[in-house]
Amino acid sequence: MFNVPKRYISVKALYETVPKTEKQLDVINGWVRSVRLLKKVAFIDLYDGSTNRDVKVVIKEPEESDVVKSLKTGQCLTIHSPILKLTNGSRTQAFELLVENPTKNLQVLGHVTEHYPLQKKGHSLEFLRTLPTLKYRTLYYGSLLRFRSHMEEYFINFFNKQENMLKVSPPIFTVNDCEGAGEQFLVNSPVLQDKETFLTVSTQLHLEILSTAVSNCWTLSPCFRAEKSATPRHLMEFWMLEAELSFITSLDELISFTKRFLQSIVTQCYENQDSLLTDQIPTLINKPEILLKWEMLRDLDNWKTISYTEAIKILTEQHKKQPFPRYEPQWGEPLQTEHEKWLAGSHFKSPVFVTDYPKDCKAFYMKLNDDKNTVACFDLLVPEMGEIIGGSLREDNYNTLQYEMQRRNMNKDGELDWYLEMRQQGGAPHGGFGLGFERFISYLLGVSNIKDTIPFPRSANSSISL
Amino acid sequence: MFNVPKRYISVKALYETVPKTEKQLDVINGWVRSVRLLKKVAFIDLYDGSTNRDVKVVIKEPEESDVVKSLKTGQCLTIHSPILKLTNGSRTQAFELLVENPTKNLQVLGHVTEHYPLQKKGHSLEFLRTLPTLKYRTLYYGSLLRFRSHMEEYFINFFNKQENMLKVSPPIFTVNDCEGAGEQFLVNSPVLQDKETFLTVSTQLHLEILSTAVSNCWTLSPCFRAEKSATPRHLMEFWMLEAELSFITSLDELISFTKRFLQSIVTQCYENQDSLLTDQIPTLINKPEILLKWEMLRDLDNWKTISYTEAIKILTEQHKKQPFPRYEPQWGEPLQTEHEKWLAGSHFKSPVFVTDYPKDCKAFYMKLNDDKNTVACFDLLVPEMGEIIGGSLREDNYNTLQYEMQRRNMNKDGELDWYLEMRQQGGAPHGGFGLGFERFISYLLGVSNIKDTIPFPRSANSSISL
Repeated sequence: MFNVPKRYISVKALYETVPKTEKQLDVINGWVRSVRLLKKVAFIDLYDGSTNRDVKVVIKEPEESDVVKSLKTGQCLTIHSPILKLTNGSRTQAFELLVENPTKNLQVLGHVTEHYPLQKKGHSLEFLRTLPTLKYRTLYYGSLLRFRSHMEEYFINFFNKQENMLKVSPPIFTVNDCEGAGEQFLVNSPVLQDKETFLTVSTQLHLEILSTAVSNCWTLSPCFRAEKSATPRHLMEFWMLEAELSFITSLDELISFTKRFLQSIVTQCYENQDSLLTDQIPTLINKPEILLKWEMLRDLDNWKTISYTEAIKILTEQHKKQPFPRYEPQWGEPLQTEHEKWLAGSHFKSPVFVTDYPKDCKAFYMKLNDDKNTVACFDLLVPEMGEIIGGSLREDNYNTLQYEMQRRNMNKDGELDWYLEMRQQGGAPHGGFGLGFERFISYLLGVSNIKDTIPFPRSANSSISL
Repeated sequence: MFNVPKRYISVKALYETVPKTEKQLDVINGWVRSVRLLKKVAFIDLYDGSTNRDVKVVIKEPEESDVVKSLKTGQCLTIHSPILKLTNGSRTQAFELLVENPTKNLQVLGHVTEHYPLQKKGHSLEFLRTLPTLKYRTLYYGSLLRFRSHMEEYFINFFNKQENMLKVSPPIFTVNDCEGAGEQFLVNSPVLQDKETFLTVSTQLHLEILSTAVSNCWTLSPCFRAEKSATPRHLMEFWMLEAELSFITSLDELISFTKRFLQSIVTQCYENQDSLLTDQIPTLINKPEILLKWEMLRDLDNWKTISYTEAIKILTEQHKKQPFPRYEPQWGEPLQTEHEKWLAGSHFKSPVFVTDYPKDCKAFYMKLNDDKNTVACFDLLVPEMGEIIGGSLREDNYNTLQYEMQRRNMNKDGELDWYLEMRQQGGAPHGGFGLGFERFISYLLGVSNIKDTIPFPRSANSSISL
């Protein structure tokens, strides 16, 4: 059994509580990021993952200790009685930890083999992605884990605390296909009864049930789509944030709520920028660029809202001037990513809500507008990425919904009767939105491959090793 | 389109901000719990699910309004310009909402059919469970949703804020069987590659990877077990809270952490008892009894820790006096629920940690004790329920772990080599615990059927309808 005392200070706590005077600490634990061995002194950059920062450890009389002489990147260490020494050092670390008598005070908890693949030098993301058990020890992947964790706090702060909405857990197993796209995973087991059971593609239909009991609710829940696309934008398994609100009757109200949500989350990010962002990996996380983006996202007053029909008009004019490479914009067709990116990125140079799409471009549950051709929905398009949030009012008229389901050849075996009947039993006008959590993280941090924003990504055409 | 103004006050906000003087409000929305129509006045109990409380609405001159005369339980209403009137009423509501001119001010947003199944009178839980789209409108099921949502906040407060641990999202799709019990669901889709892909039964192995990068992490994540048992204690799909800590080297440290966790959560419940518990459904949620239980759970100093071997001794003596109905306690066999309940409920009359079980009673990853027969683990047993939390140190010695896996005939195709190899690449001594979220809720609120603690329960031998 290793001899690690019970109380140790995390690197995060160390930075938060740096005293004004020198002080002997009890214990610090962590992993070796890099080591430099000189004659009279050795330097270690140590990290423990509690923060984006490493801590510099200075070891006196390294020659006396075999442990110090054989220090290697990746080893797990426990350090007893380090002395916190104030330095006139850089902005990033105004102190260092001094270790005297390393033979006694420095212990290796976990060794590494000669083939330990992470070294001080930067590795390519392609290489790191082949190391699912080790990549989170790098500053880049570690900082993404920490960001994701903080985001979950910010969601609770907004939905539960500010908006008094309930966090709920809709089911993963379902017999319905909410989006009607047929991209579901089938589950097999002898304990499952008669019906074919699938993994949910969206929790929305179940959220609607719950919102009709508690007014307003939200979830952050895994969803699964058996899409064949193996792109940097797609995951088979991802976490979806969905919110559903009763008593809203206009798209404007839903759009204001969505803006309030974004403003809250981005403001929380902005206020915690020092702990969320790091200066040390500028090629991957460009702090000034991210802060500019966050400032744009907080500046909601400048965001335009246009209808799909207006969007098509703008796109068609642009297409005449300079054709889009792959798709000609056409009323009645979905907006393509190239259109979305151009609208937000080049035309408006800001996020833009596009509303009231043709009903055949969207799912069956969206509320039909008075024109009978379009539905009360929006897509929020952002520069660089295109669509990031989709929302709609839900059809609350029984007859209209029934007709639409028939028109789409749905509900032939009455499998969605329960959904229809909710419109007859004390239904409320309602609506909501959905947002892929990994996509949101990718966008906020400028991460080019969505696979890097979730631990252990599951995506098409890549086999699962653990 | 319904004419609902944008700003309405929730019932929760109404109770929290009751002014000292009478006041006209803008709008309140909600559903009719019950209605009583008299000649000169009508009374509605209205709820909106934002709180456990209903609000009493008094309607003047009901005869003038056809809407009032046809009011029914279950209808969704919007009420304009209600006057908040202070009353000398009961503790539960010191005010009522007075509606004048109901023809103008009261609107039905959602009607009900004649067959609306929820009525004022209490329904049996058996009956309510057949109404998955409506049951959350009852006070009982609604209060369980609200409790669950608050618990998620308390988890964030403890793990993220107090303990500075990261919330992480381990994968649902996996090729490993963490518990080795073979109760996994297989996933089918043409987009999945070569290997058989399962739904996770526990996220622990993946949490271990992440804890070796960020020191300490936790998750609240769906897990899936294809158990055949259709008991009030089992779900096929449930949410598991799991925590993993680096740098702990003794069971004592893990037990202290577990106690700290319980104390924090139960204290938060206790402090929010007024909003979490309701007086109105005493047959289902017995408030005084629950508070007694919560007080016991905060009183950690009285909790005993005994070894499995001691537990067997105590149980054997008891068995001689009065035999357990189904199982004779025997060293080497798992403790049965009847043993666990007797130990915590009758013998210690308090929660009790039982430690150091025989290795063959437990999973392969637990750290072998020096006696080579038992492992460094605990089960926390509680009165009424038996085991509620299980934790262990994880085997961090490569050779010991490899030998144990061989002994169990595991890893024949090297599918867990990655897990073994973590012990060679900067591993840290570590351990953690797991807790079924629904079981925890059941226990804290004395809910007798675990199915009631999760929306849309999925359990063996009950078919999935939506």
